Amino acid sequence: MNNTRNEDDMPAAQSDPLVAGSIKYVYDFAEGNRDLADLLGGKGAGLAEMSLLGLPVPPGFTITTEACRHYLRTGEQPKTLSAEVDEHLATLEARAGRKLGQDDDPLLVSVRSGARFSMPGMMETVLDIGITDRSVQGLAAQVDDEVFAFDSYRRLVQMFGRTVLGIDDRLFTNVLSAAHLRAGGAASNLSGAELRDVVTAFKQIVLDETGHEFPQNPRQQLDLAVHAVFNSWNTERAALYRRREGIADDLGTAVNIMAMVFGNKGEGSGTGVAFTRDPASGQPGLYGDYLADAQGEDVVSGSRNALPIAELKQVDPKSYEQLLHNAGILERHYRDLCDIEFTVERGDLWMLQTRVGKRTPAAAFRIACQLVDEGVIDLDEALRRVSGHDLSQLMFPQFKPGPDTVRLTTGINASPGAAVGTAVFDSATAVLRAEAGEHVILVRRETTPDDLAGIVAAAGVLTTRGGKTAHAAVVARGMGKPCVCGAEELTINDDRRQLIAADTVIEEGQQISIDGTTGAVYLGEIAVEPPPIVDYFDGRLDPEAPEADDLIRAVHQLITHADSKRRLGVRANADTPEDAARAHRFGAQGIGLCRTEHMFLGDRREYVERLVLADDEAESDAALNALLPLQRDDFIKIFEAMHGNTVTIRLIDPPLHEFLPDRTNLAVRVALAKASGDVDENDVKMLAALERLREVNPMLGLRGVRLGFAIPGLFAMQTRAVAEAALDLRQRGLAVRPEIMVPLVATVHELEITRRELTRIIFEVGEQAGEALEIPIGTMIELPRAALTAGPIAEVAEFFSFGTNDLTQTTWGFSRDDVESAFFPAYLKARVFDVSPFETLDREGVGRLVRIAVEEGKRANPGLPAGVCGEHGGDPDSIHFFNQVGIDYVSCSPFRVPVARLEAGRAALETAGGSDSR
Amino acid sequence: MNNTRNEDDMPAAQSDPLVAGSIKYVYDFAEGNRDLADLLGGKGAGLAEMSLLGLPVPPGFTITTEACRHYLRTGEQPKTLSAEVDEHLATLEARAGRKLGQDDDPLLVSVRSGARFSMPGMMETVLDIGITDRSVQGLAAQVDDEVFAFDSYRRLVQMFGRTVLGIDDRLFTNVLSAAHLRAGGAASNLSGAELRDVVTAFKQIVLDETGHEFPQNPRQQLDLAVHAVFNSWNTERAALYRRREGIADDLGTAVNIMAMVFGNKGEGSGTGVAFTRDPASGQPGLYGDYLADAQGEDVVSGSRNALPIAELKQVDPKSYEQLLHNAGILERHYRDLCDIEFTVERGDLWMLQTRVGKRTPAAAFRIACQLVDEGVIDLDEALRRVSGHDLSQLMFPQFKPGPDTVRLTTGINASPGAAVGTAVFDSATAVLRAEAGEHVILVRRETTPDDLAGIVAAAGVLTTRGGKTAHAAVVARGMGKPCVCGAEELTINDDRRQLIAADTVIEEGQQISIDGTTGAVYLGEIAVEPPPIVDYFDGRLDPEAPEADDLIRAVHQLITHADSKRRLGVRANADTPEDAARAHRFGAQGIGLCRTEHMFLGDRREYVERLVLADDEAESDAALNALLPLQRDDFIKIFEAMHGNTVTIRLIDPPLHEFLPDRTNLAVRVALAKASGDVDENDVKMLAALERLREVNPMLGLRGVRLGFAIPGLFAMQTRAVAEAALDLRQRGLAVRPEIMVPLVATVHELEITRRELTRIIFEVGEQAGEALEIPIGTMIELPRAALTAGPIAEVAEFFSFGTNDLTQTTWGFSRDDVESAFFPAYLKARVFDVSPFETLDREGVGRLVRIAVEEGKRANPGLPAGVCGEHGGDPDSIHFFNQVGIDYVSCSPFRVPVARLEAGRAALETAGGSDSR
Repeated sequence: MNNTRNEDDMPAAQSDPLVAGSIKYVYDFAEGNRDLADLLGGKGAGLAEMSLLGLPVPPGFTITTEACRHYLRTGEQPKTLSAEVDEHLATLEARAGRKLGQDDDPLLVSVRSGARFSMPGMMETVLDIGITDRSVQGLAAQVDDEVFAFDSYRRLVQMFGRTVLGIDDRLFTNVLSAAHLRAGGAASNLSGAELRDVVTAFKQIVLDETGHEFPQNPRQQLDLAVHAVFNSWNTERAALYRRREGIADDLGTAVNIMAMVFGNKGEGSGTGVAFTRDPASGQPGLYGDYLADAQGEDVVSGSRNALPIAELKQVDPKSYEQLLHNAGILERHYRDLCDIEFTVERGDLWMLQTRVGKRTPAAAFRIACQLVDEGVIDLDEALRRVSGHDLSQLMFPQFKPGPDTVRLTTGINASPGAAVGTAVFDSATAVLRAEAGEHVILVRRETTPDDLAGIVAAAGVLTTRGGKTAHAAVVARGMGKPCVCGAEELTINDDRRQLIAADTVIEEGQQISIDGTTGAVYLGEIAVEPPPIVDYFDGRLDPEAPEADDLIRAVHQLITHADSKRRLGVRANADTPEDAARAHRFGAQGIGLCRTEHMFLGDRREYVERLVLADDEAESDAALNALLPLQRDDFIKIFEAMHGNTVTIRLIDPPLHEFLPDRTNLAVRVALAKASGDVDENDVKMLAALERLREVNPMLGLRGVRLGFAIPGLFAMQTRAVAEAALDLRQRGLAVRPEIMVPLVATVHELEITRRELTRIIFEVGEQAGEALEIPIGTMIELPRAALTAGPIAEVAEFFSFGTNDLTQTTWGFSRDDVESAFFPAYLKARVFDVSPFETLDREGVGRLVRIAVEEGKRANPGLPAGVCGEHGGDPDSIHFFNQVGIDYVSCSPFRVPVARLEAGRAALETAGGSDSR
Repeated sequence: MNNTRNEDDMPAAQSDPLVAGSIKYVYDFAEGNRDLADLLGGKGAGLAEMSLLGLPVPPGFTITTEACRHYLRTGEQPKTLSAEVDEHLATLEARAGRKLGQDDDPLLVSVRSGARFSMPGMMETVLDIGITDRSVQGLAAQVDDEVFAFDSYRRLVQMFGRTVLGIDDRLFTNVLSAAHLRAGGAASNLSGAELRDVVTAFKQIVLDETGHEFPQNPRQQLDLAVHAVFNSWNTERAALYRRREGIADDLGTAVNIMAMVFGNKGEGSGTGVAFTRDPASGQPGLYGDYLADAQGEDVVSGSRNALPIAELKQVDPKSYEQLLHNAGILERHYRDLCDIEFTVERGDLWMLQTRVGKRTPAAAFRIACQLVDEGVIDLDEALRRVSGHDLSQLMFPQFKPGPDTVRLTTGINASPGAAVGTAVFDSATAVLRAEAGEHVILVRRETTPDDLAGIVAAAGVLTTRGGKTAHAAVVARGMGKPCVCGAEELTINDDRRQLIAADTVIEEGQQISIDGTTGAVYLGEIAVEPPPIVDYFDGRLDPEAPEADDLIRAVHQLITHADSKRRLGVRANADTPEDAARAHRFGAQGIGLCRTEHMFLGDRREYVERLVLADDEAESDAALNALLPLQRDDFIKIFEAMHGNTVTIRLIDPPLHEFLPDRTNLAVRVALAKASGDVDENDVKMLAALERLREVNPMLGLRGVRLGFAIPGLFAMQTRAVAEAALDLRQRGLAVRPEIMVPLVATVHELEITRRELTRIIFEVGEQAGEALEIPIGTMIELPRAALTAGPIAEVAEFFSFGTNDLTQTTWGFSRDDVESAFFPAYLKARVFDVSPFETLDREGVGRLVRIAVEEGKRANPGLPAGVCGEHGGDPDSIHFFNQVGIDYVSCSPFRVPVARLEAGRAALETAGGSDSR
């Protein structure tokens, strides 16, 4: 699919296994740089880049994604890999002055995954590789700390057992918990002897579960760990994450092997995660969490609550200053917010990872404008740094607490947005209830990678432990899902399936509301209101006013810049005066699609029924005459709301029976009535009409322009209403620019014949009033045949408007009405596509038709305006495509208008030659 | 539409009204030739060609179709036309030695329409232009025959009144009938005085009806007649004829102005229509009708029964010999059967028209081979002279009269074929009953152009008067409809609406059967049997055997030649062993489409119901396991019938609910059962399943390859059945070549995933038996997206098969199930298209997709076989297109296989550089 991130940029020769002998599979950190992220993964590239910058990175090397792909494809590692690892390991050992697992003073290494695109917590890590029964003694002697040595060994056997050997982790944690209990409680420290016993027990578990001893060859440990990382690419949770994020399945992961540094060497040691600015609010200044005397995994898993990074300043001012300094170097180098992992080992700061950091939508806007103010980037670059997706998230409604609102607590605002749902306490339940259509909030002490399916299913996530860098926070932010973390005042009772606040007990299934922007957690369902950004777009909030915050100003600055850059016009789809007025305020330059269907609903169904049941022309004329003034009034109001901007009116499109009762229900009613001898003759007549109008596939039946041929007078009535409404405004001195759009045209002949009739009516209406009325008549391009014969059609059409929803239906041969049917979820699961083609335009198929039609239409009729009025008109990725192929304007729902304006500006930067950083 | 005959070949400059001043609008007969038929019409070109050949053609000239188009477009004749007519008229007058309408010796002219494509009887003719109150006296004096002069004047006023002035013809015929009655009876001759009175009365009618005197200016008569001919292009019956025949609406007609010659000048005069061979049987020798002392219109209208042409030999041997001589010249010149109109005026033979004559299918085959035998044309040319359409007509069933059959009479076998239907006595009734789904036989004394709609609606035509050249015969032959003419033993009672035979009275609505091949008319519905040609194809009749007639031999000769020429393979669509066996006998080189749907019908529905109602995998597996051996046996039998030829099996395609009960009916049954408290729980369960499976647009829903994703095991079961069946044959030493075809693929990913599973199963089945089983897996290309992404799909597919029915549905956005709905007839009437795109491939839209897919598929996967298995695979026009775009084979119903073989051969001649005379 078009928007899957994939390996297109990779050199093809390297993928060819026939020339495997010549491929370099291992890169020292000093050999790489950030441009090699495809090959080295994000982590490997970041480590290489930091090495280049002279930052303190432990020595190490990276096995490429290419090696992983070879392994996954063939089940074996490349033949030359082992020798390359030997060589790089030798260099590492030389630099460290000791050998991997050396008995008296072992070099220990970590083995970490690192894919091209960050997949937080999805894949495997093994630390402390190199400890054996013998070298653990040497380690203890070297650091003079038996506790540290055996705790490290314990960690190795547990991690190796779980990750490499696939042993259920609970077998290990049960042993460990028992040891703690014996030692005096869950939080107690274990002695060296106690840890030694734990290691013995752990190794016994390995033997029992696998039939083999825990490997005592350090190099074997290393190789097995590397393979385990390779294999972790294909775990179910990793595949699910990629599907959710649109990452290609065939990229593979790189593996980073690095000399261990220890944050768990007691005082003066610790580990942390930091951002160069606040990734939630965009606030400048070092931001993050620090955990003293701990290893990195302890922070990310959220299993111990971390301290704010500022505390490091108190504990270890030297390391703090150095970190601040390094952060500055990185931010200036990357010209963007960076996300850093670091460890302090007995006073020495080590940089373990960096990358451009994920951020919330609000932070994206704020940081982009801050960097402009700081002179780091220009406005074009700032515009590239935000997205329509970000902007749409900022427009989501916010909670509006009332006097009766019960606030349960306030936790950490880990991922912004408001979510309401029923509390559920495990991921399986979340998935189950969500599938049944329920909105759920996943409530957990902390989340683990295994909770991914639950997070995907939930409307929001609430955890009682962990900070902004905990798993739940990172994943939720990535998905744009509201998340509140570390709500420590709340307790979860797993057995009773209850969430307990000070004086309230929430049972599973009860409603709660969480506000990821403020951290607030409420009882029940809280009403929502539009956020200030909507007030801004609605013209109720001046971005220069004191009550407008820097977010409003940032959005204003960037959307104004986008407007100044974009080539694409932006119109709105609006069927009512209210929607039209809002669209106008939101910056729509007209209405690209005014559907007339709703004008046949409600009270007016009666006329449609009369039209369908009409026995002769007089009866159908009477029904049409009754509809005429109603339609005219509708149009007058919409024209007024658009203040002289173009309003493109689509003639009625859906099959008539959509306005009529359901056939099966009516058949049952008539049958029952007949059985009881009490029949309504109108029902019988209607049932007969429904039988007559019945179509096996209404989407492919009597609708659109075909109605004009089958029901004489229908289009004429609508055209007359448009013309008379336009005349009405004009006679009142008001500007008005209507256009009429003929739906579902497949051949130029349909349009020719229809246009001839409509033109005559417009002329007549104008002539009677002594006005020269001109209303352009164009066509929808929404069938493959229309696109394929766009040249001839363009000679008759005054404009094109692509109905990409219908075009997607027929190009793919599935109906939007039926996509919720059995195969669609199966398709997403099997990755037949990563995103529904109804959401994001399918460039290869539907897009090719759009491209053909624009090209051939404009060749046949130079200057022919071409717009898009399908829902894709408001989809960021699709907008970029439309900009590329020469579409003139997009039309989308009023609320998407700002998004479309922003993305149209970003798209313009792309075609102007700049690169697109989305 | 693609197969509309249109003006593509015309020089574009001539169509540009801006350069009208430079256009030549009038051609003397001596200036034209047969290659100018677009400009001069068929008749004008024929007259010009005969002039070139030195045959006796009355002098005259032709006003071009271009002038007509100008007139129809603008409402006025081209400015320069009048001067051109002056000039050519002056030449004509000079040659004739007298002036148009000259008082003492008037030059009289005929004004006749003549379009590019023959539209027999559809358009207007005015004879005897030039007679006025004064010149009629001169005419009478010159020919010394007052009766002739005033009868001619009478004819002029009547024809002019009807044609030019639009006066109801009955006003004239009533006066004429009254005059005859007064003179002694309907058949009586009128005296000069009586005719003079008739003319006076006719002129009074003109004055009364139009408010103007009958024009006394000969040139004004001429101009008005020319305009009337122009206008006749747009009469409703002409438009209907063009729609029926696929002739473009914008061609216009030419007008031929020719000095009158008179076949009604008493003894030694007459008029006739002749073919150079029998157009019904192909028998060599002059064939036609002659009417002594008559004008041409009298023959064509069939209002007097003509004599066989052979009688002319008795009456006027000189003229007969001259005609025979001229016919020989024409046939040698045109190298084909010619159709000739001629008049003999007092012993002088005049050739009034010639063209390549229409003929029956049997005659087409016979004549083509005769001409080969005569050395006139070669076999390639002979193949071009016949068509698949002809051949398919020859394969229609014939009547098989039994001992109880009542033969009412035998008339003239005017258009071959067998038709059964209810007798109706006027065209309006024919149309009405046919629309209600009835098969009708239109029974008329004689037909007129106004009967066209009735002939179109009827299954066959029976007239009691007229010969093979009468209107009914010509039109019916053109349409390939059975027709019996001149059944003089039958009488029609219009008042009682009865057809009366010797001792039988047939009421309107009673069934009759007519045999246009033999001329027999039967009471009631006669059983049919296949004609000998089917015996030939079926291998039961040796073309060399004495009982095989020359038709069989001709078909054999030409289809053998086609087979030797064609590039396209021909396969059959066959789902049963019987169909497969027949297809094999008919020359199919394999099965291109074996649908597996029928294998889920009948007794087996029960398993499908179980599959759908299955609560768990075990239940659905049980249902699939029950189906497996049944499918395997089906395949074994089909493979056996194909004797080692390729059999392409399509996995199940339609939505499952097609195999289940109707939802509405079941809902009514359940509701009624509930009301009476007697509910069948199975019904309730099935209704729930139907609700679950319900789709708004099943054609766009869960079907084809999607079923494979939604119902695990279904495709696997089918594939196993195919593989096991193939194995069975192989183990018995029989050749077998199965292929598996995946339906409804839209993206390569669907095919990739499906193919992986199927390949595994095929491998497993082979492995278990120790055989290397290879079954190619290909895909249908039946969705626009598949065609648009054919390149990537071709990398995974082992063959393509175009499902042009489905491709047409989605490309046009209308469903075959619904085409009988309201808009389709309206579209045909409005000429949105001339032929349903489901019958003949739409080249611009669907064809463009086919072209793209073949090109890109073969580029990505050279050697990829590409076939067509939609119904278009048996349509002659479509076959030519498929041949052009590089399709490798077509697959069609067994009965169309010979047609496809023939057309594939003809198509090969086209691409080999020869022109196509279809």
